[in-house]
Amino acid sequence: MASGSEIERLIQLLAKLPGLGPRSARRAALVLLKKRDLLLEPLAAAMAEAAAATRSCEVCGNLDTVSPCNICRDPRRDPHLLCVVEDVADLWALERAGVFRGRYHVLGGALSALDGVTPDRLNIASLLGRAKADGVEEVVLAMNATVEGQTTAHYLMDLLGDLKVTRLAHGVPVGGELDYLDEGTLSAAFKARRSL
Amino acid sequence: MASGSEIERLIQLLAKLPGLGPRSARRAALVLLKKRDLLLEPLAAAMAEAAAATRSCEVCGNLDTVSPCNICRDPRRDPHLLCVVEDVADLWALERAGVFRGRYHVLGGALSALDGVTPDRLNIASLLGRAKADGVEEVVLAMNATVEGQTTAHYLMDLLGDLKVTRLAHGVPVGGELDYLDEGTLSAAFKARRSL
Repeated sequence: MASGSEIERLIQLLAKLPGLGPRSARRAALVLLKKRDLLLEPLAAAMAEAAAATRSCEVCGNLDTVSPCNICRDPRRDPHLLCVVEDVADLWALERAGVFRGRYHVLGGALSALDGVTPDRLNIASLLGRAKADGVEEVVLAMNATVEGQTTAHYLMDLLGDLKVTRLAHGVPVGGELDYLDEGTLSAAFKARRSL
Repeated sequence: MASGSEIERLIQLLAKLPGLGPRSARRAALVLLKKRDLLLEPLAAAMAEAAAATRSCEVCGNLDTVSPCNICRDPRRDPHLLCVVEDVADLWALERAGVFRGRYHVLGGALSALDGVTPDRLNIASLLGRAKADGVEEVVLAMNATVEGQTTAHYLMDLLGDLKVTRLAHGVPVGGELDYLDEGTLSAAFKARRSL
């Protein structure tokens, strides 16, 4: 290799980021080293600041600069609605959509026998505590539409039996073309058809 | 947004890396903040170390921890062969292929009227100096096979007129399928066909 060991190490670590393979990590390292003042130094500073400033919310598991997080603190959020997600990224995605005005609970993953994720490794005990204590009226299970996500949703539904438990609708994505959709999605969309 | 301004700033800077869009930058930021000890801190340290350790080679323009770089210093490298590339990434790609045992010259880009890249913005003066002074016998123009790259190659060929100047062969990429290749490549490969 033409490059020193410091550059190699930077490339190796960049390649661990999701979305960057070995080749794009090399390109990213080159861009970083070329734009030191404009990109490398601000990014290093932003990483240190974000690491110092963020913590997991002790209530819901969201990542924020305060704990409890700004969503858990927000008095305009309906405390009777609880949306359970697998991951912080899912919470952020729902917030971007702006459709939910209740509070969240981040499980930290989904049940997976293959990956050894058992119920005790997810934030389920605290979910049950919140669901029973806080006067929650509806729990929305917003798991991914994967085998693991749906397994987790069924498992939680059994535990939350006496509450109103809902899940996200399955169907044709907005902007989606039928021709490109799998049979499972089409079948779900057809069964859940609504009158106009 | 659910996230603090420190997280937003980290996402914005990550999104400037090649290969990361806004969505994957968000995923990368989450992974960094979740794996602080394993990824964020080592990456921040590696960035600082690489920035402190690397410099542009004063001879060829390569990025390395020493200047002149390890390729320019290597006595086993043939000083009579000079390979001209647009960018450090191209130099690294040729080094990975391990086909060239001479020295390099990095132009720092390609001529482009659209982007305002004129000859004086590329390392052309130092290339001419090296080509005349160092007893160079052959200059390989390893520009990209783009309009800008080929324009640059023609421009350099005129300047280097009295030396032996070569360019990389065009043809079918190894492992490539004819069906997926453009007409220009097929035409070049056909014209340059070789007897078996």
